[in-house]
Amino acid sequence: MKSDLDALMKSQHLDAIFVAGPGQHNPAMVYLTGGAHLTGAFLIKRAGQPALLFHNPMERDEAARTGLQTCSLGKFELQKLIADFEGDVLRAYGEIYRRMFTEAGLQQGRVAIYGLYEIGNMYAMLSAAKPLLPDIEWVGEFGRSVMLAAMETKSPEEVERIRKIGKITTEVIGQVADFLSAHKAHDEVLVGQDGSPLRIGDVKRCINLWLAERGAENPEGGIFAIGRDAGIPHSAGEADDLLRLGQTIVFDIFPREAGGGYYYDITRTWCLGYAPDEALALYEDVRFVYEEVRKSLRLDTACRDYQHLTCDLFEARGHPTLRANPSTQDGYVHSLGHGVGLNIHEYPMFSATASDEVRLRPGTVVTVEPGLYYPKRGLGVRLEDTVWARPDGPFETLADFPQDLILPVRT
Amino acid sequence: MKSDLDALMKSQHLDAIFVAGPGQHNPAMVYLTGGAHLTGAFLIKRAGQPALLFHNPMERDEAARTGLQTCSLGKFELQKLIADFEGDVLRAYGEIYRRMFTEAGLQQGRVAIYGLYEIGNMYAMLSAAKPLLPDIEWVGEFGRSVMLAAMETKSPEEVERIRKIGKITTEVIGQVADFLSAHKAHDEVLVGQDGSPLRIGDVKRCINLWLAERGAENPEGGIFAIGRDAGIPHSAGEADDLLRLGQTIVFDIFPREAGGGYYYDITRTWCLGYAPDEALALYEDVRFVYEEVRKSLRLDTACRDYQHLTCDLFEARGHPTLRANPSTQDGYVHSLGHGVGLNIHEYPMFSATASDEVRLRPGTVVTVEPGLYYPKRGLGVRLEDTVWARPDGPFETLADFPQDLILPVRT
Repeated sequence: MKSDLDALMKSQHLDAIFVAGPGQHNPAMVYLTGGAHLTGAFLIKRAGQPALLFHNPMERDEAARTGLQTCSLGKFELQKLIADFEGDVLRAYGEIYRRMFTEAGLQQGRVAIYGLYEIGNMYAMLSAAKPLLPDIEWVGEFGRSVMLAAMETKSPEEVERIRKIGKITTEVIGQVADFLSAHKAHDEVLVGQDGSPLRIGDVKRCINLWLAERGAENPEGGIFAIGRDAGIPHSAGEADDLLRLGQTIVFDIFPREAGGGYYYDITRTWCLGYAPDEALALYEDVRFVYEEVRKSLRLDTACRDYQHLTCDLFEARGHPTLRANPSTQDGYVHSLGHGVGLNIHEYPMFSATASDEVRLRPGTVVTVEPGLYYPKRGLGVRLEDTVWARPDGPFETLADFPQDLILPVRT
Repeated sequence: MKSDLDALMKSQHLDAIFVAGPGQHNPAMVYLTGGAHLTGAFLIKRAGQPALLFHNPMERDEAARTGLQTCSLGKFELQKLIADFEGDVLRAYGEIYRRMFTEAGLQQGRVAIYGLYEIGNMYAMLSAAKPLLPDIEWVGEFGRSVMLAAMETKSPEEVERIRKIGKITTEVIGQVADFLSAHKAHDEVLVGQDGSPLRIGDVKRCINLWLAERGAENPEGGIFAIGRDAGIPHSAGEADDLLRLGQTIVFDIFPREAGGGYYYDITRTWCLGYAPDEALALYEDVRFVYEEVRKSLRLDTACRDYQHLTCDLFEARGHPTLRANPSTQDGYVHSLGHGVGLNIHEYPMFSATASDEVRLRPGTVVTVEPGLYYPKRGLGVRLEDTVWARPDGPFETLADFPQDLILPVRT
């Protein structure tokens, strides 16, 4: 939680954190500002002190609304600096960095850097600032950074935001189900009233529209994949594909609040009209594993244990797993889930190689998403929910939707 | 243009470019892959050679569709490396970097880095790779990088994509105009059929919906600001504000193709019902300057000349400018425009401090957006179009919409 930041910084011997980039679509900046409409900003938070937000002079009102301490970048007179340094803009930015740290009262120490930013540009700026801030050490954290560690557990307010986008998401899933069910089949494919076939691209357009109607954005587009594509976990689905009866459709939808806020993540697998035996058998295995894993979730347990449990269960039912064969493309070929928040994939990860310290802590919000894939047989099944590790113990699905495999269509 | 990349790399003594991050919402990666649905990828392009795309094994089909040479990251066996390095994931990633460069046949040289990426994470990875690639120099370019220099001029295919998103944008502006005009006024504010007032938030929801219907995304949300907010160039507008007659509304809309593709950028200023004299006077000054600047655009002219021309024209009409007073918040307080492409702001910039080399080259696509702002008087006027410097000479507005100030409403 955000309130853990100071303790986390202390544990990593960080004297400050530095965040760069816009106030939206930039997880670290959204986390610390609440998602202000700032096109370019910087933030310095010293250990044990409140954050100081540096903003474009034209964006003073948006900056003020964050409730943070603010400082206009206009104060540093970039144009005058550029003139002083005879047109050397990079040198001028180096000086702006020096002045920002002076403003924040920090002359030395370890400073962790964050922000979704063009890496070449930032690499140049950090290099230019280095000689002007000789006692500041830039720290690039890998993996579970202090910021991601704070984000790993959610406050009640964050959980409510995730629940709200979850409600929108499941409403849209229901709308898609109704839309498909209202179609009739002709020669085993769904067709519209005029007899022309419905295609995956049509469904995806509807999904985007229905999300937009509810104020959500869908930056990654989601997955609506049928047949062989359903058998490849990350295949998004082909716009021209027809909606054939009896084929598995993996529908993985992960929209977020507009402006780059909190995500929700849920997957359902559908067969239109009927399910062939081999699809039903896979579905039953996935559903069984889903239920077993859900029942076994406990606070303060290591995440990797659940990945192993999932492999155990799938292997016992005769399916290949990445654990047994790291190059398999059949069977269970990904990890059980991941944290969800301002990043679609964040900590904790249910990876088999995660350290013992990666645990389900109170306030964690994670996906649970076992799946089976047999691309050559044109089959894929995944069931996924986003669940909250309630501080009082139980694990709660934040927005639910029936897991039924067969979606009836008009005959 | 992309075809200039090799020459640009040569001019900067670059042996390769390295791009990191997803295949969408990541300008450099979208530019070189066409916008593939890749969640995490790397690309190495050596000078004079085709690009080599490294992809997640699960995303092999999406990678293949780019038409680039591809290499699965699965080949480098991350999990085995992590085990070999006793759980040191960062060290394993360093080794992956070494293997990628070996695969690309590059052992030494200057490598420019690109990609919208978490900076701390990338800083850590580049640092980890450094000892393993001792003869590779990471180059962070500041400002007009080789990539941005290539992007600065557009191919006919890129212009058509920008024109298409422009057509969508202007259709939505028309829809907003019709929507507002269909409302009637009560006590100087627009109201719906049930007499309840229309608010800016309602209009913004419609804009997002109508863009989504046409397959566009609106990542930055755009500006629809009235009164005092219209007088602050970057104020996005308040959701709760009413739509009052006779106040200036700055409507700046800059959506892009879904998946993080090309942007369009256009601004109109409206007064609902009628325009007070002081709004009309500002509008006429802005329109006059817009026309003068548009008429003066010539290929191969320095961009800064147009910023100075704009300041000359506004100052002659009695308005403060940033040139005359760098701290003014009244008058003409920004620059004349910017390139538009996969970034909403790219090169060339019409900045007064731009070098003489920043010129309107054939194929450039830029905004022209003079504006006047008087926040204390609750007034702002901006007119903006996106124009293409045609290689055959004339400057063409890629998608037009009438510039009328007064938007009639029902009485």
